[in-house]
Amino acid sequence: MSKNRINVGVVGGTGYTGAELLRLLVAHESVNLSVVTSRSEAGSAVADLFPNLRGALDLDFVEPDISLLAGCDLVFFATPNGTAMTMARDLLDKGVRIIDLAADFRLRDASVWQHWYGMAHACPELLAEAVYGLPEMNREQIRDAHLVANPGCYPTAVQLGFLPLLRAGVIDVESMIADCKSGVSGAGRKAAVGALYAEAADNFKAYAVPGHRHLPEISQGLKEVVGCDVGLTFVPHLVPMIRGIHATLYATLTDKAVNLQSVFEDCFKGEPFVDVLPQGAHPETRTVKGSNICRLAVHRVGGENGNRVVVLSVIDNLVKGAAGQAVQNMNLMFDLDERAGLGSLALLP
Amino acid sequence: MSKNRINVGVVGGTGYTGAELLRLLVAHESVNLSVVTSRSEAGSAVADLFPNLRGALDLDFVEPDISLLAGCDLVFFATPNGTAMTMARDLLDKGVRIIDLAADFRLRDASVWQHWYGMAHACPELLAEAVYGLPEMNREQIRDAHLVANPGCYPTAVQLGFLPLLRAGVIDVESMIADCKSGVSGAGRKAAVGALYAEAADNFKAYAVPGHRHLPEISQGLKEVVGCDVGLTFVPHLVPMIRGIHATLYATLTDKAVNLQSVFEDCFKGEPFVDVLPQGAHPETRTVKGSNICRLAVHRVGGENGNRVVVLSVIDNLVKGAAGQAVQNMNLMFDLDERAGLGSLALLP
Amino acid sequence: MSKNRINVGVVGGTGYTGAELLRLLVAHESVNLSVVTSRSEAGSAVADLFPNLRGALDLDFVEPDISLLAGCDLVFFATPNGTAMTMARDLLDKGVRIIDLAADFRLRDASVWQHWYGMAHACPELLAEAVYGLPEMNREQIRDAHLVANPGCYPTAVQLGFLPLLRAGVIDVESMIADCKSGVSGAGRKAAVGALYAEAADNFKAYAVPGHRHLPEISQGLKEVVGCDVGLTFVPHLVPMIRGIHATLYATLTDKAVNLQSVFEDCFKGEPFVDVLPQGAHPETRTVKGSNICRLAVHRVGGENGNRVVVLSVIDNLVKGAAGQAVQNMNLMFDLDERAGLGSLALLP
Amino acid sequence: MSKNRINVGVVGGTGYTGAELLRLLVAHESVNLSVVTSRSEAGSAVADLFPNLRGALDLDFVEPDISLLAGCDLVFFATPNGTAMTMARDLLDKGVRIIDLAADFRLRDASVWQHWYGMAHACPELLAEAVYGLPEMNREQIRDAHLVANPGCYPTAVQLGFLPLLRAGVIDVESMIADCKSGVSGAGRKAAVGALYAEAADNFKAYAVPGHRHLPEISQGLKEVVGCDVGLTFVPHLVPMIRGIHATLYATLTDKAVNLQSVFEDCFKGEPFVDVLPQGAHPETRTVKGSNICRLAVHRVGGENGNRVVVLSVIDNLVKGAAGQAVQNMNLMFDLDERAGLGSLALLP
Repeated sequence: MSKNRINVGVVGGTGYTGAELLRLLVAHESVNLSVVTSRSEAGSAVADLFPNLRGALDLDFVEPDISLLAGCDLVFFATPNGTAMTMARDLLDKGVRIIDLAADFRLRDASVWQHWYGMAHACPELLAEAVYGLPEMNREQIRDAHLVANPGCYPTAVQLGFLPLLRAGVIDVESMIADCKSGVSGAGRKAAVGALYAEAADNFKAYAVPGHRHLPEISQGLKEVVGCDVGLTFVPHLVPMIRGIHATLYATLTDKAVNLQSVFEDCFKGEPFVDVLPQGAHPETRTVKGSNICRLAVHRVGGENGNRVVVLSVIDNLVKGAAGQAVQNMNLMFDLDERAGLGSLALLP
Repeated sequence: MSKNRINVGVVGGTGYTGAELLRLLVAHESVNLSVVTSRSEAGSAVADLFPNLRGALDLDFVEPDISLLAGCDLVFFATPNGTAMTMARDLLDKGVRIIDLAADFRLRDASVWQHWYGMAHACPELLAEAVYGLPEMNREQIRDAHLVANPGCYPTAVQLGFLPLLRAGVIDVESMIADCKSGVSGAGRKAAVGALYAEAADNFKAYAVPGHRHLPEISQGLKEVVGCDVGLTFVPHLVPMIRGIHATLYATLTDKAVNLQSVFEDCFKGEPFVDVLPQGAHPETRTVKGSNICRLAVHRVGGENGNRVVVLSVIDNLVKGAAGQAVQNMNLMFDLDERAGLGSLALLP
Repeated sequence: MSKNRINVGVVGGTGYTGAELLRLLVAHESVNLSVVTSRSEAGSAVADLFPNLRGALDLDFVEPDISLLAGCDLVFFATPNGTAMTMARDLLDKGVRIIDLAADFRLRDASVWQHWYGMAHACPELLAEAVYGLPEMNREQIRDAHLVANPGCYPTAVQLGFLPLLRAGVIDVESMIADCKSGVSGAGRKAAVGALYAEAADNFKAYAVPGHRHLPEISQGLKEVVGCDVGLTFVPHLVPMIRGIHATLYATLTDKAVNLQSVFEDCFKGEPFVDVLPQGAHPETRTVKGSNICRLAVHRVGGENGNRVVVLSVIDNLVKGAAGQAVQNMNLMFDLDERAGLGSLALLP
Repeated sequence: MSKNRINVGVVGGTGYTGAELLRLLVAHESVNLSVVTSRSEAGSAVADLFPNLRGALDLDFVEPDISLLAGCDLVFFATPNGTAMTMARDLLDKGVRIIDLAADFRLRDASVWQHWYGMAHACPELLAEAVYGLPEMNREQIRDAHLVANPGCYPTAVQLGFLPLLRAGVIDVESMIADCKSGVSGAGRKAAVGALYAEAADNFKAYAVPGHRHLPEISQGLKEVVGCDVGLTFVPHLVPMIRGIHATLYATLTDKAVNLQSVFEDCFKGEPFVDVLPQGAHPETRTVKGSNICRLAVHRVGGENGNRVVVLSVIDNLVKGAAGQAVQNMNLMFDLDERAGLGSLALLP
């Protein structure tokens, strides 16, 4: 391996975001993947668990170990919530940079975090230091970050969809609605009755209407854009598909003269991973399956004088909603082409 | 066959609503199914096209013919839009009662109909006479009706979900939102690229955001409840499942003291086919698959003083959203037990 | 409840065969369902777990208890393998009849059972007494049985497909092949990674090629038909669908003059739940979804003098492959119309 | 574009094999894609039809035109059967090399072709010249070929699975069985009722048991390996998944001492796109989704002295079964690294 490659470790490589991260890292020309940890699978070949990696990755899972990980330039955490925060301090002290794909560093307020995640935060002092890894909002801070909180899947789709409207200041920020739909891989690779094929197939349901952990994350992000509290109703739903998130966003226009199409195109001009569709379009989740693109369309409804705006925003929850965005953040942190290793086109059909 | 049975004809029995109607009628103890028409399949056995009917229905498709249909007590139209209106006058004149599962008689205003359906209405004079066949709203008129316009699938789920709130007068009627999701059978059994398995599976998309035919139908129905125009944003989506509609409804409360759970339970008390779930629940479409039930839950969101209400409403688009509701209307029209032939429990899983 | 109804208990009502059994029993006019047990769910309403039963079944799960079950005329076991054998002796002694939907009493040889199921049999003396509940093979013995071993799903589809050929004595019994495909509900309702939506959807695989528990069950049944050992290769596969089994059976003809279509039609003449399709047909699993029918087609391949026969056999694994066949057995044991409670047509589409 | 790039045209880019071919060619570093034709879509942007190509391919569909295509080094035909044969002569005469993804040049005998494809062959003289593009069998001929007949999807999976056994001469070649299962994309992107989501989802069926066009293609290929006629029973089935073929192959061993695992590993040693799994494994179609790999496992069944061999062979029907194999052939024909542009790992989950 080239000495110039980034030496990368992955903690917790047995879930879906981990699997997707490995798929992307293995193909990344500037990455030397040297450590993949898993307590449960230590000693077995990674490619035995994910046979799509056969022939491309010749590593065994090892037990997570700080001294081993300390040899990396960068460590990704693809672990359950609550793990990264127990190891982050040590790794940062040893000069290792971190991207956490879980939620440990997404919220700035430790008490809010504790409320939603049901445990005390192990290192609240790091929350201020962590950079929220949504490049379209925080690109410059990400470049210099040592600790990146990779955004959640719903928050990515929702924030990118509302961002142009909020920056342009053309909607009422107290009555926003995000009706979101996710494929089942969003529930993770842990055995759970509700995620069984025979439960989730040929079925559709809302869940967590009384409250979902991504709500405070989204609200925090939107608030930073507008500078004040926002009112958001967020309802997630489970779709019988493997990958994909579709956010349908509703807001009330305060400026009825605005050209919404221009607002969106201008906002994302030059963005490598945001694609604004032509007027009247409806993005499909399959057009981003396996790719790092967020595809958007904006509609004004209610007739000529309609004051309702509807935004349609789709991502692959495992790529732009997780592992792909993490790689995008890595590219920024290590001064690579932001697109490096993320060129795959969506698999369609 | 018993002389006391209703002599029934079905025009257009080759689509999905037709197939479902046949399944229900064959098992209905008070029905004598005597005629099933299809231009394209005339001469072949119905059970050859729908093998689930083998052994239960021994009829051949015949050409549609007024004189033949005139021998029926009741004719169902399970045809494309625009067919029933060309035959209705003749059949009514011969004393045949009609239930149209298509849209020909759903809108009261012929010009609105022409706008949305792209053709002139063939018998606008019948629009006033037609009864909109949503039993939970119009039960008594249906009993005496000669011409019933069976509601659309989305309109059934949406109107039943908003009905308690509108009757109770507790929401702002100018800012209602219906974010709706339908299984692919809603697109019908005609060959179309967009409904192919390889297009619709593992995918999610919105469609018809600029305008959908069910919007004027829903608006008309809601207006009749409240007595004034309503403002409704309606966005339909396509779900990779065969059957089922899930409507997620959003409204702003004008009465924050109201007990929403009671409003819903009171509104539907005694209704044989509406099931209000306990507080905090999330209905799943699979719990109504193959059944005539509309299952509902109501949530108040936004914290203790939240003024947003979210209603979750699920039906089987082919049963309560089409054929089952048609049979329910037939039961009312012919003074049968409203539940007759509609007792099947949902197939779960 | 009528005194004439059969008083029925269900042990283990939380899996998919249990759920399907409840759906069928609730609608059965001669059944009084009085007890449903579950250790894990005791105290909660059955309809809370399976909301499709809301309004139709008003029972709570209770702890399994012999004295309670002793009040039943009939107890169904819808439990994991190894449970029924621990309670059967006691219940039989108290005069309760039993239908076991698990595998405890399917094999006549306790040592073979132990080999395949990995535990010693708790009551090997009952194996001789148990009747294998495949009505098309053992109808008369079932009528008088006190202990019925309800067949496995694959064994039902495979044995019904080979039965006509074996009875007619027209194939080589040493080189039979059963290439079988099952929907994911066949894996049960327990949380397991392999049955997750994101693992099983958009995927197809064989499993258990080195050996599957249903092989000795099928071989035993076929051997009883022909009176000698048979040679069978059995390969099961997992299909991304909820319900359904499709068995593709291959055999070499020893009598090339035989009329295969007649052999099949004659064999199943008068059978209420076996439907032989016309020559050249291909049965689809969806034509039996939710119904108790086994649908079959037979093909001779290899040209005019072809000596290869291919049989296509489809069932719903949860109905004819489990709960429906159990109800069919109950009907026989209690001298009811064999079709009672089993009239539902398949849900198509 | 570099002058050293291959100048490539695609005729018929609106189907699924065409879409997949475009996805692969766009990312291929040695390809300059200059022409994509479609009669029906001429004038519209390719990326409007397949939005996954937005930003990666800036070409409009044009009418098929020989003079335009004559400027290419290589033309792929991703057309329906019967199209390539009408244009091949002209293009070859102008020095253009051809890879036909349809069936026009797969069979050597024009009368057999006519029998199975229902039309006279337009240029039977080219059949002898065409090279069957299965690199694992014909690599050297492909390098020099001007006209490559890209294999069918089933034939690829079946021939690769039988190849080691036939080369080793260890099975009876008169009683081979191929029980094959394909995802729905194999039916193409044309509107057809049988391929609708609501027809193909949650369903499984065999089709074309009396005869399928891929049977003579497979038989021809196997015959060339063994040097004599073979006896093959081929039964295809439709699986509710988008992509993937799983072939389950059965044969009778004539050499019971053979080490099957070694036979397979030796046969495919060094092959870049064939992966023999360890003993006892079961390949899953999803492990090759979007990749050009054929993944295989071999099992001996029937106990220690069992003489039955079962081979499990999986490919992505659109990649190794169509577009990927076509690119592999192109790489051989133009002296590129055989793996060029084909490095993508399967998308899992």
